[in-house]
Amino acid sequence: MSVERTSGTRAPGRPRSERAERAILAATLDLLAEAAGVAAVSIEAVAARAGVGKTTIYRRWPNKEELIVSALAAAKGPLPDLPPGESARENLLALARALSAEQGTKHIRCFWNVAGGAEKHPELFARYRQVVIEPRREVFRGVLRRGIESGELRPGIDVEMTISVIVGSMTMQARASAARDVAPEDFAEGVVDLLLQGISAEGDGAASRR
Amino acid sequence: MSVERTSGTRAPGRPRSERAERAILAATLDLLAEAAGVAAVSIEAVAARAGVGKTTIYRRWPNKEELIVSALAAAKGPLPDLPPGESARENLLALARALSAEQGTKHIRCFWNVAGGAEKHPELFARYRQVVIEPRREVFRGVLRRGIESGELRPGIDVEMTISVIVGSMTMQARASAARDVAPEDFAEGVVDLLLQGISAEGDGAASRR
Repeated sequence: MSVERTSGTRAPGRPRSERAERAILAATLDLLAEAAGVAAVSIEAVAARAGVGKTTIYRRWPNKEELIVSALAAAKGPLPDLPPGESARENLLALARALSAEQGTKHIRCFWNVAGGAEKHPELFARYRQVVIEPRREVFRGVLRRGIESGELRPGIDVEMTISVIVGSMTMQARASAARDVAPEDFAEGVVDLLLQGISAEGDGAASRR
Repeated sequence: MSVERTSGTRAPGRPRSERAERAILAATLDLLAEAAGVAAVSIEAVAARAGVGKTTIYRRWPNKEELIVSALAAAKGPLPDLPPGESARENLLALARALSAEQGTKHIRCFWNVAGGAEKHPELFARYRQVVIEPRREVFRGVLRRGIESGELRPGIDVEMTISVIVGSMTMQARASAARDVAPEDFAEGVVDLLLQGISAEGDGAASRR
């Protein structure tokens, strides 16, 4: 599992300290991916699994919630920033495919465990939104805004709603979906094209598009 | 919590046996809603919590997986069958609102715990799809097909993809969404209208709509 630094985490320490940090983040994810999710993660369990002392952990993270958010942020990796596509469709497709590729990995299992416990751990989930989800939504915002500027997308679209629909569809793909047998690439394309074209038979829909 | 019989469960037993069944299903949900999810549910724990003997449970359910599926099916309640709306939009809106109303309830927390453990419990999740998800998707299929027949919806739409997009958006609403502050009613309407109209600026899109 690759645990890379993302912007926003602290400056790199010495090599030895960095090895410890990687081991700690990896151990946190291992525990988080277990059935018990957040409940399985404790500073003690992480220390034992990472082979470090608890003090080493507390030197960097004040509590288990911050540690979990760091581990998820490091594992999740950034979405392709400013995708290189030439059209809004290509850019949205690149983002949807990136989301699709995450399905079935360990960190998506961690996400489900954190999201599933959102009511029990509201502060943890709020931090997760802030550190992990928000920057990813910002990439989507850029693509949608450029598509509106270029005239490819309707000026009146609800950008936040559009992002929620794409992210929700891709995240639930392998779960509540009968479309789970569809190849991820095709599913991503299907969602983007459905959203671009809409399902209404109205030829122009000019009235309702204001 | 109301645990109602849904079609497909066994015929009602005697009153006393029915009370036991309700207590067992309620206890199963209580345990399933805990942080540990599926791992917290055992026949022993359910028996203790419901105040019945293990034999009473085994008489009705062969294993804990079947018990969990029964409890979720009973708690979830059916979607409004054949919604009474006069248009495809009204019908889709009624379904989206029904999904929206489920957010934050105990059984949606149970769903997250079951879905989060889908990799660990593939057979349980497959049964859940079959018993709970599939009948709900079938209601959506009916609405979309009638909309196509009435000429309101494009004949070429991918019905399964459309369902996945609506269900995915509504289920993730309160989780990965920055739109979590939007009232559920407005969110449901936003998703349905976005999907009806599409986000492309193409006025007619006739070419891509074949």
